[in-house]
Order: sequence, then C-alpha cells, then structure tokens
Amino acid sequence: MPEAATPAFDLAELTAASLERIRSRTPLIHNITNYVVMNDTANVLLAVGASPVMAHAREEVREMVSFAGALVLNIGTLDEAWIESMLIAGHEANDRGVPIVLDPVGAGATRLRTETTERLLSELRVAVVRGNAGELATIAGLGGEVRGVDSVHADSPEAAAARVARRTGQAAVASGVVDHVAAGNRIARVHNGHPLMGRITGSGCMATSLVGAFLAVEQDPFLAAAEAMVAFGIAGELAAEKSAGPGTFRANLLDAVAALDAETIRRRARSETFVTQPA
Amino acid sequence: MPEAATPAFDLAELTAASLERIRSRTPLIHNITNYVVMNDTANVLLAVGASPVMAHAREEVREMVSFAGALVLNIGTLDEAWIESMLIAGHEANDRGVPIVLDPVGAGATRLRTETTERLLSELRVAVVRGNAGELATIAGLGGEVRGVDSVHADSPEAAAARVARRTGQAAVASGVVDHVAAGNRIARVHNGHPLMGRITGSGCMATSLVGAFLAVEQDPFLAAAEAMVAFGIAGELAAEKSAGPGTFRANLLDAVAALDAETIRRRARSETFVTQPA
Amino acid sequence: MPEAATPAFDLAELTAASLERIRSRTPLIHNITNYVVMNDTANVLLAVGASPVMAHAREEVREMVSFAGALVLNIGTLDEAWIESMLIAGHEANDRGVPIVLDPVGAGATRLRTETTERLLSELRVAVVRGNAGELATIAGLGGEVRGVDSVHADSPEAAAARVARRTGQAAVASGVVDHVAAGNRIARVHNGHPLMGRITGSGCMATSLVGAFLAVEQDPFLAAAEAMVAFGIAGELAAEKSAGPGTFRANLLDAVAALDAETIRRRARSETFVTQPA
Repeated sequence: MPEAATPAFDLAELTAASLERIRSRTPLIHNITNYVVMNDTANVLLAVGASPVMAHAREEVREMVSFAGALVLNIGTLDEAWIESMLIAGHEANDRGVPIVLDPVGAGATRLRTETTERLLSELRVAVVRGNAGELATIAGLGGEVRGVDSVHADSPEAAAARVARRTGQAAVASGVVDHVAAGNRIARVHNGHPLMGRITGSGCMATSLVGAFLAVEQDPFLAAAEAMVAFGIAGELAAEKSAGPGTFRANLLDAVAALDAETIRRRARSETFVTQPA
Repeated sequence: MPEAATPAFDLAELTAASLERIRSRTPLIHNITNYVVMNDTANVLLAVGASPVMAHAREEVREMVSFAGALVLNIGTLDEAWIESMLIAGHEANDRGVPIVLDPVGAGATRLRTETTERLLSELRVAVVRGNAGELATIAGLGGEVRGVDSVHADSPEAAAARVARRTGQAAVASGVVDHVAAGNRIARVHNGHPLMGRITGSGCMATSLVGAFLAVEQDPFLAAAEAMVAFGIAGELAAEKSAGPGTFRANLLDAVAALDAETIRRRARSETFVTQPA
Repeated sequence: MPEAATPAFDLAELTAASLERIRSRTPLIHNITNYVVMNDTANVLLAVGASPVMAHAREEVREMVSFAGALVLNIGTLDEAWIESMLIAGHEANDRGVPIVLDPVGAGATRLRTETTERLLSELRVAVVRGNAGELATIAGLGGEVRGVDSVHADSPEAAAARVARRTGQAAVASGVVDHVAAGNRIARVHNGHPLMGRITGSGCMATSLVGAFLAVEQDPFLAAAEAMVAFGIAGELAAEKSAGPGTFRANLLDAVAALDAETIRRRARSETFVTQPA
C-alpha cells in the first residue's frame, strides 16, 4: 500500500473536541458485554463522561438501545441467549441509526466465537470492529492465530484492519503496541499506550466501550475509533507513571481517564495518519 | 408537608450501635443482584463486617435465604430466570421474617424494569426500597425521568420517597446529593456523601446492600436505611480525601467502610429528622 | 496420624521454579467460575504470568479446554446450564489429560452446592480440590459447618483435606490461617498469608485459579497446590504491608503477585511438609 501525505486534520484536536462533547452531552452507551469486564467498562465510561447501561434481556434491549448514543457488542462470555439479544439490539440500532461497535473477543479461538462474529457482521451494519491482531486477521481471513482470547500471532495487523474495514465498509481497529485504525483508504497509527494495559483483563474491552462513547459524538467511525485509541492510550501512559503493578494500574487508569484534558491530549498524542492509494 | 420538631433520637449513635452489632454478629446477606456490581457489593458487605453470599439458582435460593439476616434484590441486569428466583427467594424471606431491600435499578427506563419492580412490590413485603430520585418517582407514579439507569430529573425526591413508603407501608430512600429516607410520617435527610460516589458504577447498589446489613441488626426499616446512608456517606467523604479520581476512590471507599468507627460517625454524621403532620 | 521426617524437597525452590515456567510458557487457564470473581481471577492469572480465559457455553467449552493447561471449576454462582457445561468441559479435560482444579464454594450450605460437588467429584477425575475447612469437611463427610460461603467451623481442616485427597486419589487443600495440603500420605502446611486475604471477596477463588496455573507446569498435584499456596500467601503478606484496608489491599495483591520473584520466595516461604504413616 503506497502511502500519501498526511491528511489535513489534527487527531489530537479532534480527540480533545470529542472528549468535550462526551462530557457535555453524557451519551448513554448500551453495552451487551461479557461478565468479566462489565464493571471495568461501566467505570471507564463513567470516567470519560458517558453514561453506561448494561442490559441483555431480549425483552428490553430494543427499548434500551432506542435511548442510546451507541451500542457496544462484546462476545467475551457468549451463550445462545446473549447472541439472540445482540442481534435484536443490533437490528434496532441499525434501524434507528445508533452506531454499533463490535469486540470479537476470541474470534478464531472457538467455532462459536468465529461463527458468532461472522453472523453479527453479516446481519448488522457495524461502525467499528475493534479487536487484537489475531481476531482481526481471523475475520479478514488472513489466518491469525488466537489462543483463548489472546492474540498469538498475526503477520500484519494493519492489513487485517484494512481488510475488515473493506468488508464492513466502515472502520476497524487492530489494537496492540501500535493501534492500527483503518477505513476505506485511510489509516491511522496510534502510538500511545503502555505495556501495563496488556497486563490487566479487560483493557481491550474498555477501549471498545470508549469507541462507543466517541461514536456517540463523532459521526465518522474512523475518527471516533482513532480518537478513542489516542485518549485511552494517553490515559494508560499517565496511569503507568503512578503504578507499582497491574492492580494499582487498574485503579489509576480510571483516574487518568477521568482527568484527561485537552492540554494533555495535545501534548502527548502520538499518531500518524495516511491515505493509501490503489497500487 | 408541615414539619414537626426533630424526634428524640440520635441517628449518629444509632448508626454506631448498629455497626457494632453487624461486626459482632456477621449477618449473612443474601444478594440476588446484577452482574456489574456483584464484586463491589460483596466487598462492601465484607468491609462493613457482614458475610455476603450471591446465589440465584431457583433450586437453592429458598434454602440460602433461610440462613440470611436480609435479602437484597437488585434488578440491574434482569432476565426471566432471575425474576423468577427473586420471587421465590422473596416469598421465602417473607414467610421467615427475613427483611427484603429492593434496588429498582432502571425502573422507568424500560417496561421490563418498571413492570418487574411493580411485580416485586405487589407480591412481596419489601422493608426498604432504595433507588435514585427518578426510579422512586416512577414507582410513586410521579413521572420521574430515567434514562438508562441514571436519574435525569425528579421534581421532589423526598415526595417520591414518601409516596413509595406509603405504598409499601415500610421505608424508602431516594439517594442523591441528599439522601431522603421516608417511612410513615417520618423523614430523614442525610447530608453525608461525596460527588465521587456518583462517578463510580455500583455505589447505589453498594448502598442498597449496606441497607441489607443494617436491616439484619435493626428492626425498624426507617432507621436501618437512614443508618446505612449515614455510614456509607461518611465513608465516601473519607475516601474522597485520599483519592485522585474514581479508580483510587473505589479502592479507598472499601478501606473507609472497613475503618469506620463510632467516634468518626459521631464527629461526621450530618442529618436531620422530621415528623411530618397531616396538612 | 504419626508424622515422619520432612521429605527431601524444598518447597520454596519448587515454587520459584514453577513460577518461572508459568512466565515462560504462559499457559492458558480455562475458567468456568462464578460471576463475583471473574475479573479478579482473570487478573490474578495475568499477574502470575498465565493467560486466562472464561468460557461457559456448552457449544464451546470442549474446544476451549483442548487448548488449556488446566481447567478451573468454581461453583460460586451455580445454575443448571453452568453445571452441564462444567461436566462437558471436565470430561473433555479428563480425556485429554488436562488437569482439573475444583473450588466447591458453599458446599454444605445448600443441597444444590453439596450435590453438585458430589456429582463433579463422582464423574470427573479432579487433580486438586481447594476450599475452606467447612467445605472440605462437608465433602469428607466430617460435618463441617458452612453458612453461606464462609466456613464457620471444622474440627480438623487437615483431617478433612486428607480424607478428600484419599477419596479423589489426588490432592486437596483446606485453606485458612494455615493452608493444609494433602495427597496420599503427604501433608504440607503453608504458613504464609495475611488476615486481609479473608477481608476481600474472591481471595479463595483466586487461590484456586493460581492452583490451575501451577498445575499447568507441575505434574504432581500435591506440589502444584502447595506451591500456589506459598506464592499467593507471600503475595498477600507483601500486599498487606502497603495497604490501608481491603480496597487498597485488593489492588496491591495483584501488584505483589506480578512482582513475585525467586529471591522473595526463598526468603519468605514458611511451610512444613510431612509424610504420615499408617497408625
């Protein structure tokens, strides 16, 4: 993919502006997510200034999503009843123009997870898919290796993200040391973040929920996803400076998300954006 | 509601005495609650000196509640199977004289939550209903606005609490910057607390579980509810002094509940109690 | 039980060596566990260097356990569907030689929990049973008292562990102020640990998951269990030194597990090992 000059937008400024909008509008973010991270994702959404709700009963998801600024679907602890609820909520979200972000936790590790991811992507219009490189490679058909829910190997996270984005016609993020965000011919590489983020469970799921918060105030899924990665990555760096290990980091991470401001974002954002050109 | 003179009891002393009884008796508190807050509510019950148990299978809730000092019902992540278990456990609790506290999370936001709240209140004798102003207003028929699980608006939290208490014939709490506790013609306003409590998920649910712990050692539901609000509010203030944001606050809050003592409660309790008179 | 001389092995050295293997191999630990502790157990497994996965759908547990170094079954928030999944995953684990650790949370408190424990132990080959003294006494038929999920009374935790181990033909741990590990005619008493571990929910469940991590790299279930108790006990002591109460302790505990090294283990391990002789 030959690369063109950086497009004329400043991701740091856009991130700061979206964060401001989240805090002033307090969008409701409807999460159908896994048991492991429900508390962390609710807390990170509160920290960023959004209003989280968790609701999974098929009797109420249609109603709940109708108030939402975004719908977060996360397949980390799936079973049949939850898949059905994700589809009901997802169709309603699509009908109402509520953007969906999908976290395909463990896609590639078991058939249930791979097939559920396929089904959600076939039936629903998903604004952003955010996963690790192995999950994205699985969806892209590039044969990434996923063991349990951790990515073991993927040749090119960026190529995987770009392919997933082409498939959905929307945006995709392959998270890792560098977060690769792709949509159409646009690519963003976000260099913010800290290794401690990979030492706690749910940091990826928290990132996905934050994409939901940014999607609620930013129409362009590519920008919403890149902005969320910048904001969360900076918070991770700031939290790590105060932490003696993963336990204190987990607490400090919420503090850092809550304390984020425009000045800090401008000073610390490290990203590149490209427009790729047909070969 | 014209107000009469403060009744002759000292809420700080009663709170300290109940706390002492919780710690010496370690009452078992049976929770059928939501996935988001299970860990936090178990930890806050341990911190206050009670013994938490979470059990939701219809095969065992009747047996489990038979050992309990109180039953906590919280509808935060409902579905059909859990509603059935709440009713089975609730009837058994009523039969055995085990007091019930209900947290109607999101009542008013979806029909499932509103109707489930109605059903639980119709079928069960509930000692204390504790919710935010919007949830209480919904139950009171005052048309509070609830979006997701956060209260957006309610004209008079105190009137809502009083109406709910009249309906159940027991006590009700509308939590907020001021916690309004009502039962019959008695009102308590608890001014303890800190804004950081609203910045973490589950602080309301933790308050509800603490009401359960106080109910296990205090026969009067009005006093149990008011005492729990005083204790938790003071803990919130103390935790906030040490916290840099919501993540460290969440950890410090458990420390503060565990460290509460009679001297601190006497020094920091801020409440008013009234007897209202028929107009 | 008359006691023979200490066998010729050094539990501290074995613990340090197993910890090193966990960190270099990053074994996948498949957990089918309770809602309350999912986050904590995932985080403690990451902290020790393992890779946790939570999966409970009957459609995927067979596939997931096939990648695992150990299977953790924890009955803390049971219902029918989860019992079925535990059995499916357990049979597959047995077929593939993946070791199983069972935490019989609340066995003795309700018939569902006691019977489910019996069923799991009858149908599956369980490498390690880890519980509190009351749970182990229940399984051993010694009539320990369990109220909710906390052990109230048990005459001899060590005798209970030894009986359970004889029944399974494998190892058992009765955790408490002293952790009693038994297998065949071998007994280990681990004196590491701190009272704050009993003040947070899930410390027992975390210990069980750590047994899973050690089982993945240590073939002898007796040693795996004893090593996990040494490692977790030391981490508890180190965390307590930095903590002002249960909330900060919970965060510091993960830090301490992540920071454990061979030197610290050698310096702090306190245990005795015995070989009992037929009377």
